[in-house]
Amino acid sequence: LRGDRDKPRAHLTVVKQTPTQHLKNQFPALHWEHELGLAFTKNRMNYTNKFLVIPESGDYFVYSQITFRGTTSACGNISPGRQQNKPDSIIVVITKVTDSYPEPSQLLTGTKSVCEISSNWFQPLYLGAMFSLQEGDKLMVNVSNISLVDYTKEDKTFFGAFLL
Amino acid sequence: LRGDRDKPRAHLTVVKQTPTQHLKNQFPALHWEHELGLAFTKNRMNYTNKFLVIPESGDYFVYSQITFRGTTSACGNISPGRQQNKPDSIIVVITKVTDSYPEPSQLLTGTKSVCEISSNWFQPLYLGAMFSLQEGDKLMVNVSNISLVDYTKEDKTFFGAFLL
Amino acid sequence: LRGDRDKPRAHLTVVKQTPTQHLKNQFPALHWEHELGLAFTKNRMNYTNKFLVIPESGDYFVYSQITFRGTTSACGNISPGRQQNKPDSIIVVITKVTDSYPEPSQLLTGTKSVCEISSNWFQPLYLGAMFSLQEGDKLMVNVSNISLVDYTKEDKTFFGAFLL
Ligand SMILES: [Mg+2]
Repeated sequence: LRGDRDKPRAHLTVVKQTPTQHLKNQFPALHWEHELGLAFTKNRMNYTNKFLVIPESGDYFVYSQITFRGTTSACGNISPGRQQNKPDSIIVVITKVTDSYPEPSQLLTGTKSVCEISSNWFQPLYLGAMFSLQEGDKLMVNVSNISLVDYTKEDKTFFGAFLL
Repeated sequence: LRGDRDKPRAHLTVVKQTPTQHLKNQFPALHWEHELGLAFTKNRMNYTNKFLVIPESGDYFVYSQITFRGTTSACGNISPGRQQNKPDSIIVVITKVTDSYPEPSQLLTGTKSVCEISSNWFQPLYLGAMFSLQEGDKLMVNVSNISLVDYTKEDKTFFGAFLL
Repeated sequence: LRGDRDKPRAHLTVVKQTPTQHLKNQFPALHWEHELGLAFTKNRMNYTNKFLVIPESGDYFVYSQITFRGTTSACGNISPGRQQNKPDSIIVVITKVTDSYPEPSQLLTGTKSVCEISSNWFQPLYLGAMFSLQEGDKLMVNVSNISLVDYTKEDKTFFGAFLL
């Protein structure tokens, strides 16, 4: 029997993103604040190089909210006589990487078409669920378009996990 | 004092739905994958006939995300001079059924009007909260329109519960 | 080592709001049902005067869903030749007040532009994350516009917290 206060936990908050390389077949990963303001990691849950590293096997609740905002209509010109068939979209994926397995796996995906009339739009995508994770598993958050992520406030865009 | 690893837990993921009968005054219930891929049930939490069955009384966190998508404008023709007064909607309800009580009760409801300009739209509805449940309570997820549920990927549409 | 059943927990549900005063630089706070229907507080978690009061220090999961609905187009007249630059928005903030610190702090914010074509729109904003809270901290939910909150059903608009 273990004490709950000793369990691995992390809450990470958004920072301004610097462009980095990413794999062709994968959305770019966000990097995060892990110790200032509301952010923290504890009890061997580590944040390193965009990844949360799971320190012990067990069932974790994993969550993230990404707030997106755009300054142009996401649908191009809205012409009423013409149907829009290709809306833009915003996508968030919480991805698990396991060293013993070659392919990253997608734990959670939030995907929303965006076809806004207004030229200044904003909206969040929230995700959260329980997963059986193994020691050494690494979690990251990938987004379809980093330049649309609202990085201005720690309470709008965040990522966390805790052992149940 | 009990060990947390022995607590009832389940994470269910979407499968292709087959049409079935449902009560007139109730939205149709989804059925779920309960053991392949990311899905699991453990410690006497059972999945049977669309229901999660609560094996012991206590406070549970219950969550679900349903991703909906449609291939036609959900508002019919958009004519700019005319106001649209009856948007279509997407609705998710997490329902509790108690054998000792005749009426199902709604624990969580997500409801969103959908009046899309584009003809290929998609979006998730996420729900999650804590409830005091009794041994034998059964939980299901009902949706306004099963044919709009995205059943293609386990990480887009899911349903879970765990004892706190 | 403590028993999980003795931990502070609360799930609050929406009630009809009565207009009250609020600070100029802060959105109005919602008040809540705390004991009827699905709502409860237990183990020294108290609800008083719109606040959940944290009875012991530790990591809490805090969540809320607010369902908004409006009966007029939130974008005014939609004229296709003109770009809409100032959409209305719906905003939810979970705010922490600490007696020893003068400024309230924002733990979670959900913010969405609303520029609906239809004149009867509705949609939820969901928030949830883990925070390190201190004994005596007080949590409230503030919204940009109380008159748009759907107060008709306890399963549509709610607020909760539990010690991990
Ligand atoms: Mg415990």
